Amino acid sequence: MYDVDAIRSDFPILSREVNGKPLVYLDNGASAQKPQAVIDTVTRAYAEEYANVHRGLHFLSNLATEKYESVRGKVARFLNAGSEDEIIFSTGTTEALNLISYGWAAPRLEAGDEIILTVMEHHANIVPWHFLRERQGVVLKWVEIEPDGSLDPQKVIDAMGPKTRMVCVTHLSNVLGTVVDVRAICEAARDKGIVTVIDGSQAAVHRPVDVRQIGCDFYAITGHKLYGPSGSGALFARAERQAEMRPFIGGGDMIREVTRDNVTWAEPPMKFEAGTPGIVQTIGMGAALDYLEGVGMKNIAAHEADLAAYATERFDGLNWLRLQGTAPGKGAIFSFTLEGPAHAHDISTILDKKGVAVRAGQHCTGPLMEHLGLSATCRASFGMYNTRAEVDVLIEALDLAHELFA
Amino acid sequence: MYDVDAIRSDFPILSREVNGKPLVYLDNGASAQKPQAVIDTVTRAYAEEYANVHRGLHFLSNLATEKYESVRGKVARFLNAGSEDEIIFSTGTTEALNLISYGWAAPRLEAGDEIILTVMEHHANIVPWHFLRERQGVVLKWVEIEPDGSLDPQKVIDAMGPKTRMVCVTHLSNVLGTVVDVRAICEAARDKGIVTVIDGSQAAVHRPVDVRQIGCDFYAITGHKLYGPSGSGALFARAERQAEMRPFIGGGDMIREVTRDNVTWAEPPMKFEAGTPGIVQTIGMGAALDYLEGVGMKNIAAHEADLAAYATERFDGLNWLRLQGTAPGKGAIFSFTLEGPAHAHDISTILDKKGVAVRAGQHCTGPLMEHLGLSATCRASFGMYNTRAEVDVLIEALDLAHELFA
Repeated sequence: MYDVDAIRSDFPILSREVNGKPLVYLDNGASAQKPQAVIDTVTRAYAEEYANVHRGLHFLSNLATEKYESVRGKVARFLNAGSEDEIIFSTGTTEALNLISYGWAAPRLEAGDEIILTVMEHHANIVPWHFLRERQGVVLKWVEIEPDGSLDPQKVIDAMGPKTRMVCVTHLSNVLGTVVDVRAICEAARDKGIVTVIDGSQAAVHRPVDVRQIGCDFYAITGHKLYGPSGSGALFARAERQAEMRPFIGGGDMIREVTRDNVTWAEPPMKFEAGTPGIVQTIGMGAALDYLEGVGMKNIAAHEADLAAYATERFDGLNWLRLQGTAPGKGAIFSFTLEGPAHAHDISTILDKKGVAVRAGQHCTGPLMEHLGLSATCRASFGMYNTRAEVDVLIEALDLAHELFA
Repeated sequence: MYDVDAIRSDFPILSREVNGKPLVYLDNGASAQKPQAVIDTVTRAYAEEYANVHRGLHFLSNLATEKYESVRGKVARFLNAGSEDEIIFSTGTTEALNLISYGWAAPRLEAGDEIILTVMEHHANIVPWHFLRERQGVVLKWVEIEPDGSLDPQKVIDAMGPKTRMVCVTHLSNVLGTVVDVRAICEAARDKGIVTVIDGSQAAVHRPVDVRQIGCDFYAITGHKLYGPSGSGALFARAERQAEMRPFIGGGDMIREVTRDNVTWAEPPMKFEAGTPGIVQTIGMGAALDYLEGVGMKNIAAHEADLAAYATERFDGLNWLRLQGTAPGKGAIFSFTLEGPAHAHDISTILDKKGVAVRAGQHCTGPLMEHLGLSATCRASFGMYNTRAEVDVLIEALDLAHELFA
């Protein structure tokens, strides 16, 4: 039995008020709140167990190294990677996708080579590829979505041509909630020797992920969306791809030897982790993964599916609300506009007065906004601790916004 | 009056024991411990004030943004930068120096162009330049140090030739403690149109820094060495240089507009900060800077000068200890080896049994180790909370190590 009240009590911020109202935090797509277990882990790491990692031999350094490195195995288990050597720590999905762009793609893609993207990608999964377009003439090939916001995997597969070198696609849209059949896409890509990059920043928060079943080359996750600290994240990178990559960030720890005339590299994954890493935030991300494992990703997925169904039903009752994205099996992320003159920013401001935190804007998805013909939407994105009662508060607040602007 | 006991009581980890002995933490060169004020700031940020920054309009997002962005001004004051727009947040000096390499140098340096380095640079200030050597034929030109470990600024100036485009130099050696006259170097470089990069990762921890007086183009600092959280840091980048830089990490927040065919950039410094940043660690770095400001960098420098003098006196009494680096005015960082068969790693292990945390190894300075003819040293690096009594404990433990290996 999923005890959402017990879960809520694990997150101290959820008991606070905002503008005199209980906080209804529906901005999980941007970043999630942290359970006490994560906060305590961070506090303990600084107050009792802190030192730099890897290079020390003293007690605290060994202790911190052990705590830090143990997270690699936790991430590998969380993603069902074959080996923890396939896990590269990052500061988040943005850095991880840039590592792929600079480390794998830049040295091998040539002018005219193609990268396939969908129109619903996040800027983090667009801008690193635009760099390659600008700097070396790589061609970006865009795949459209269906009117309901779903992505037909066959359209991605059909876009794969002889010049296609990579497919970079989200697993779960941060705006529409659409879940993408990345397994079908990766299977087809593998047959054609095309490298696959999956942006799992949203998906890994909401459902079990199995990178071996998906069959991707790269899968990026974001610690702060996974109820972990800011500045944490990880990239699954298949060993064969790591072997092909050149280093991205240069500095200590990622080298084997540095002389005046030469430099040689450490073995992957260390080759891709330069300098003092995000020690405590990575340890905190480990605590977040432990917490998620304790609750169970399947249970979280079921709870959120219930929330999504209930929210959909309530939204359906509002004939002045335009929901963007109604793909079957979508995640609990709802973007919408209201009929009439109310701008998304105005709506979010009214909701905020009622304690309801939603995001308003482009959500880092310029091409999707262009596709939708919108300059902005409001987005309510749910997490493991949200409730049906909070859906009701959101709907009430939307009713108020509608009245004010009607 | 500098009350070191009061300062020590602000750092919870300093009251712990290691191997049954009171912790004597002398690994500050690798990373410093955190005062309660920083730990509390981090805890509060997660437990009461957390949301993603910049893109939200709701209460918590505005609050987190305000706290986060206020740190830019704190860093500007700490470094005496002319404007907070000249402060770019980073995850540490390694990332900051890579930003300069990828963002400023890579698009403009050509084969045969020279970068001047000193032999005592840290790998973070070597490897990003080796990338340019490997990838585009840039020439690295090395300046020697004097037998006492000091750096004659005139030798750096004399190395500046018609092909020299950059000088990248540490302000304070992480191995020798040598303080470099970066002002003289920057003045000469400016006259010749050569860009200057100062690695302030160590110096800014130990003495007041004034980037306007130094006259450098870039100055990097590391939050976790400044008693702040892991994964925090900042780069001073002169506005004229920022205007010349192309973006490095691509993603959300650093763009103005993203379409399928094009991308335009946000104004600096945002242009160089992609995706969700290290929100809480940056806020924590702000608390660390507040703490340092409260104690006073001049006071810290005076306290550490006293420690350095006392430690030098005690080391001088050990005729079986070989100190590396005795430059006048050096910082409180002491690297040494013992006569006889004892390897640095063995010594540090013995010291650890006595509760004394020092580092043993190359200290990320391959070229310096080669120059010194050593494979490794032990390094005792002091911080604001260390005491003369801790110097005594170190010396006693070294006596023991000497006896064991004699």
